[in-house]
Amino acid sequence: MPQQKAFMTLPSDDYKEQISTLVPKQTSFRTSIITSTQISKRHRTMTGLGSSCGACKFLRRKCTSECVFAPYFCYDQAAAHFAAVHKVFGASNVSKLLLHLPVHNRGDAAITISYEALARMRDPIYGCVAHIFALQQQVSKLFLQVPEHFYKSPRI
Amino acid sequence: MPQQKAFMTLPSDDYKEQISTLVPKQTSFRTSIITSTQISKRHRTMTGLGSSCGACKFLRRKCTSECVFAPYFCYDQAAAHFAAVHKVFGASNVSKLLLHLPVHNRGDAAITISYEALARMRDPIYGCVAHIFALQQQVSKLFLQVPEHFYKSPRI
Repeated sequence: MPQQKAFMTLPSDDYKEQISTLVPKQTSFRTSIITSTQISKRHRTMTGLGSSCGACKFLRRKCTSECVFAPYFCYDQAAAHFAAVHKVFGASNVSKLLLHLPVHNRGDAAITISYEALARMRDPIYGCVAHIFALQQQVSKLFLQVPEHFYKSPRI
Repeated sequence: MPQQKAFMTLPSDDYKEQISTLVPKQTSFRTSIITSTQISKRHRTMTGLGSSCGACKFLRRKCTSECVFAPYFCYDQAAAHFAAVHKVFGASNVSKLLLHLPVHNRGDAAITISYEALARMRDPIYGCVAHIFALQQQVSKLFLQVPEHFYKSPRI
């Protein structure tokens, strides 16, 4: 069952680890989860080099030290991912959402928002809800294979 | 295991049925999944009575026969749900997304978008991705309880 094995590769208990598996093919995505103390130093370095974050690159604007996206969209594919975020959620909505969260939660929010946006781009009808349906079906099937559930109805 | 039983109550094979379970406590949500032939008649009746759809009620605008939201946001809690959709995705983004889909797919898209929006309002950090994590953990646990998987590593 290759699909089940794929699910099994996901870490099970730590959200911090799990979210790093959400958006594939981005080697430096996990580095976007940084602490509040790291942000200013990192951002100063980034803007000091004259480079913009992926969000500002996509929005064709100057990336300042106040950019709310910079700490979370500064990896290789950030501009492409932000394009999806912008199309699905809108930069303004995501900016407001991030600003309303404590700094230490913004990295996780940015990753889950990116994941939802990319899923909606791939599947405009169901988005990441297709993943929920698939997992629910997998749970239903596995539930019936567990001996102690043999005589129980899955719809109870 | 009450949590597992709760998952088991979900229909397993039909998206049309599954999506009706996504947004709880709305008796008339399923009626929003209607065919293209029903839309014009239904909408004429609705606007003929002078009532607006939930989206137009929330946006405080007149609901016309061209309203893209009307067929999918015309149930009891539609205005409240659309408020979440508007805050998370933006009415304009959702309008564009719906208009780019075939009419027969728009009902499913509207429901999954509402689900994602409500989940993000409840949990601004993880949104509906928290549900995905929970299901992945449940799959991991059930996988290990299936006899044929006893000696397999869940991380293979």
